[in-house]
Amino acid sequence: MSTTARKAVSIVEVSPRDGLQSDATMLSTGEKVELIQRIVAAGLQRVEVVSFVNPQRVPQMADSAAVMAALNSPGVIPNREQVSFAGLVLNARGLDNAFAALVDEMNFAVVATDTFATKNQGKDTAGLITQWREVGAAARAGGLFTSVTIAASFGCPYEGEVALSRLEMVLSEIMMCPPDEIALADSIGVATPHDVRERVALAQEIVGGTRLRCHFHNTRNTGFANAIAAVETGVTVLDSSLGGIGGCPFAPNATGNIATEDLVYMLHRMGYDTGINLDRACATIPWLEASLRHPTPGLLAKAGVFPPAS
Amino acid sequence: MSTTARKAVSIVEVSPRDGLQSDATMLSTGEKVELIQRIVAAGLQRVEVVSFVNPQRVPQMADSAAVMAALNSPGVIPNREQVSFAGLVLNARGLDNAFAALVDEMNFAVVATDTFATKNQGKDTAGLITQWREVGAAARAGGLFTSVTIAASFGCPYEGEVALSRLEMVLSEIMMCPPDEIALADSIGVATPHDVRERVALAQEIVGGTRLRCHFHNTRNTGFANAIAAVETGVTVLDSSLGGIGGCPFAPNATGNIATEDLVYMLHRMGYDTGINLDRACATIPWLEASLRHPTPGLLAKAGVFPPAS
Repeated sequence: MSTTARKAVSIVEVSPRDGLQSDATMLSTGEKVELIQRIVAAGLQRVEVVSFVNPQRVPQMADSAAVMAALNSPGVIPNREQVSFAGLVLNARGLDNAFAALVDEMNFAVVATDTFATKNQGKDTAGLITQWREVGAAARAGGLFTSVTIAASFGCPYEGEVALSRLEMVLSEIMMCPPDEIALADSIGVATPHDVRERVALAQEIVGGTRLRCHFHNTRNTGFANAIAAVETGVTVLDSSLGGIGGCPFAPNATGNIATEDLVYMLHRMGYDTGINLDRACATIPWLEASLRHPTPGLLAKAGVFPPAS
Repeated sequence: MSTTARKAVSIVEVSPRDGLQSDATMLSTGEKVELIQRIVAAGLQRVEVVSFVNPQRVPQMADSAAVMAALNSPGVIPNREQVSFAGLVLNARGLDNAFAALVDEMNFAVVATDTFATKNQGKDTAGLITQWREVGAAARAGGLFTSVTIAASFGCPYEGEVALSRLEMVLSEIMMCPPDEIALADSIGVATPHDVRERVALAQEIVGGTRLRCHFHNTRNTGFANAIAAVETGVTVLDSSLGGIGGCPFAPNATGNIATEDLVYMLHRMGYDTGINLDRACATIPWLEASLRHPTPGLLAKAGVFPPAS
């Protein structure tokens, strides 16, 4: 354990949106709200809870307005004012719905490659960036915290390698209308710590004061090494998902966000603060697995926290 | 990909011994030999293949002499002279059997904590180190390459935290009769990259010219991050197991060596050479899962190598 002052890493819990949207089991609105209550009770203060996208394409997210209405009801989230609830927004209509639902932040997705962008969101990368500028400007004018996640920042399921120069172009174009936060996402879980250090350093040069976030998948067992590489390169915000549920339903084989509880175990043992109660996070897993009716890929809840409480 | 000269990392494949010894499925001698043939054909040149321990305690290893006899038969391993086959040896009788079986190297295990040592090998740590000195001297006199693996170097399932000073003492005592190689093993998968850097640096100070090896488990999803931390601290030899099979049958919840194919994917993408053919390593997994009649925890063989072959 480090004897220097403990550094903080902030976790954005993505299980209610990114996690559930690709799960075969559809949770009820009440179950989603209970999941989010458990997440907040475990100490997580930023949660991606909903998505304002076409319910025909993502039926799991059709009740997003109802979920937010419940979360904003008195007493449902005791420390509501300390928690930031995010919604995924991809266009002006989604933004209207996000405003109406009273989310605290909106997250926009730009895909770094044209093929994946078109399959995922019906526009090429340039088209998505144009759309971000419109939506982002309106979101900021309306007082929302904004973030942009760059999907396929480390590799594309259709085009393969993503050149550094391509990522540089995408970052620069997005920064024409700077969000509050920008994220590099390894949507298909192909990155290594080398890639992370290289691309985070590139992004740091381009984004200036805009905060960087990283989003890793453990598809090839590199996700946790990548998370540590990101933090040690200066990233202070990481996405993760309780149990490691989720992935992108439109990316082949893209299973497995890094599991929040496993990430937090590693960070705490390395001397980082996250504000998360690891025992409570682990206690959520049996409930989550029962609700989803399948095991989750996270490991800590099965193996147990070390050292065990005496 | 790094543009500097590629560095080499050497992998010791432990699936035939450490992997199979804790599997519920007992492979036949012929299946074990086929597994080892596939391992060598994938480019692995050091393989822990057998164990000369009490067959009553570890019935999976009762045919060790027969496995080695087959491996040493003409034509079974085409490049036999380039490959080093290791056997686990815990006492003088095991060493006699190892000599008789014509292994190339012997690996001795010292457990860093008394409770685990006694449960695992019937002697406390000091007793095991005394035994190592006797066995190690005889092994070296007989021309065997010798290594000592220090189990529970990062934490104990019974005693919890293992103090640095304890590991320092164990390392120093072992070095009274220096092996050719000494390994730090995270037998229960509790280490983090911080621990790895700290304990590898400590070991480097103590062992002088003796080569260091590391053995990680992915029990809490820290194993691959630990492997990278070890390599970047100067370790050039890592244990891993195809499919991630194995663990220690006497350590509670100690499932999951790091998977060879996942480790090699990450190392190659980071610019390290291993000499391993990743496609061949992955091709072994369906055969292994069929032989064991259960899935393995490795991920790469399911997700596919990136970028895909064009």
